[in-house]
Amino acid sequence: MSVTMYSTSVPVFKQMLGSLQVILQKAQAHATEKKIDDQVFLQARLAPDMFHLIRQIQIAADFAKSVAGRLAGVELPDFQDTETSFEELQQRLSKTLNFLTSLEASQFDGSESRQIILRPGTPKEKTLTGTAYLLSYGLPQFFFHVTTAYAILRHHGVDLGKRDYMGNY
Amino acid sequence: MSVTMYSTSVPVFKQMLGSLQVILQKAQAHATEKKIDDQVFLQARLAPDMFHLIRQIQIAADFAKSVAGRLAGVELPDFQDTETSFEELQQRLSKTLNFLTSLEASQFDGSESRQIILRPGTPKEKTLTGTAYLLSYGLPQFFFHVTTAYAILRHHGVDLGKRDYMGNY
Repeated sequence: MSVTMYSTSVPVFKQMLGSLQVILQKAQAHATEKKIDDQVFLQARLAPDMFHLIRQIQIAADFAKSVAGRLAGVELPDFQDTETSFEELQQRLSKTLNFLTSLEASQFDGSESRQIILRPGTPKEKTLTGTAYLLSYGLPQFFFHVTTAYAILRHHGVDLGKRDYMGNY
Repeated sequence: MSVTMYSTSVPVFKQMLGSLQVILQKAQAHATEKKIDDQVFLQARLAPDMFHLIRQIQIAADFAKSVAGRLAGVELPDFQDTETSFEELQQRLSKTLNFLTSLEASQFDGSESRQIILRPGTPKEKTLTGTAYLLSYGLPQFFFHVTTAYAILRHHGVDLGKRDYMGNY
């Protein structure tokens, strides 16, 4: 496998979203076993002005979808942020994984130099090449939310380890 | 800029280590301003069985050094894990950034297919191609520790935002 715009995005996102599926399963099992309301975990956060677990998962999934989809040049599916349960978060991850699986490596050809506009029409508008969008923006953002989801659950006592975060590599 | 083994490692690591420098500066300034002992932050952790801030920074720096250095095929500098202060952590980050700057893109040529052995001689020994080592192992590990360092400080009340984490992109 060589390093390409495809290999640096889709398989990485799939690996980590797969990790999130397992991490959420373990969190839900922990809640059930300890008779803790699922919402305690789902609405947990690390600081009052940080997002709760549900939102971290939604944003991680959205970065995977939008970074891969914009580089592939396809229309992005619209996933509403309506999840309120572990089951619905699992569905969100599954939908996102299915979308990633639908993308072909060849759709990423030429995406290195494609212009990607962040926050268009706002004072923070910024134009990046596809490569910068993926490496300097997309990956850092994506990993931020995956790791923060893991950290929320570790902080709240769910028995997880680095292996769960790393997933299948 | 095209996506290469070099562009997917060195500039990404430099961006995020630069972020850590700023984040640590802000944490130290916060400690000083609020008359909090620096060690409160340096030894803070998100869970009893997670590493404290110092160790998170050391590991983040070590992944940047070892992933880039092994792909470039150069001897790795030996940085001892002896830091006990913000100043020493800043020096660790500076040393690591200097090492990354010393690497030339051409040294990464052919590293896609190089065999990299993780945990050699242990029961967990695993051989990966250079590409898998970078994308499936190195980046997830690196971002884990950068994000966790940020999360520790956010959880302990340091006034940081996503912009500090993202750094210059």
